Amino acid sequence: MTKSNWVLLIIILFLSSCTNNKQIQKSMETNNFMIRIAELEIEPIFIDEYIAILKKESEASVRLESGVICIFPMFQTENPNQIRLLEIYADRDAYEAHLKTPHFLEYKTSTLEMVKSLRLIDMKAIDQGTMNQIFSKIK
Amino acid sequence: MTKSNWVLLIIILFLSSCTNNKQIQKSMETNNFMIRIAELEIEPIFIDEYIAILKKESEASVRLESGVICIFPMFQTENPNQIRLLEIYADRDAYEAHLKTPHFLEYKTSTLEMVKSLRLIDMKAIDQGTMNQIFSKIK
Repeated sequence: MTKSNWVLLIIILFLSSCTNNKQIQKSMETNNFMIRIAELEIEPIFIDEYIAILKKESEASVRLESGVICIFPMFQTENPNQIRLLEIYADRDAYEAHLKTPHFLEYKTSTLEMVKSLRLIDMKAIDQGTMNQIFSKIK
Repeated sequence: MTKSNWVLLIIILFLSSCTNNKQIQKSMETNNFMIRIAELEIEPIFIDEYIAILKKESEASVRLESGVICIFPMFQTENPNQIRLLEIYADRDAYEAHLKTPHFLEYKTSTLEMVKSLRLIDMKAIDQGTMNQIFSKIK
């Protein structure tokens, strides 16, 4: 590769690393984020199967939907049937769109019997201003 | 600025945008992250004061401590006295070090009377592999 091609490549890589999604930038300005903690209890017999399906769905949502900022699934160390998800959507529209995606619908129908209880809790970030700093350490 | 200086600047900027903290990289390889959800109920009379102190403490922790990856404080929309924090530390040592910092000690002593209840729940990430993707949309 010539020197000028290297320079071009570096410029493209650098610029792409700086480019934020416009929908997310708008939400940061207008504080429209929809933040939620989902609390689920899973039937112990289905836990491995459920986790495999959830993993696939949350990965696809973040990868394919620009308005899904974060779906971060965890389980309680002391009680692995207790699942918690931190979900952040750019805004309410992004969430509504998410509910209609094939990957969400597949998740929902295939796990219906596995979920013993589900609680969805709407949250607000205490420090909207530092959300960018808070999530910037893992890239 | 000469062309070669521009090239140098761009290379430096690009490399710095790619450089992750080594402690965090190590944790991603070894799956040593310490993840926790803290559930707090605050005395209603102290809520504004508590939130101001928490905001200051969580911002300082993420900014000053390389091993504090995320302290993300939220409150329940329907019940703002219910505080939830998602905390991610690079490893147990990073957490122990955090407990000894002046900003944490100041937070702890000054909010002692304001906290009605505190529950610390150890969590594991379901998809360690996509943690970087999950947190990459807000920069």
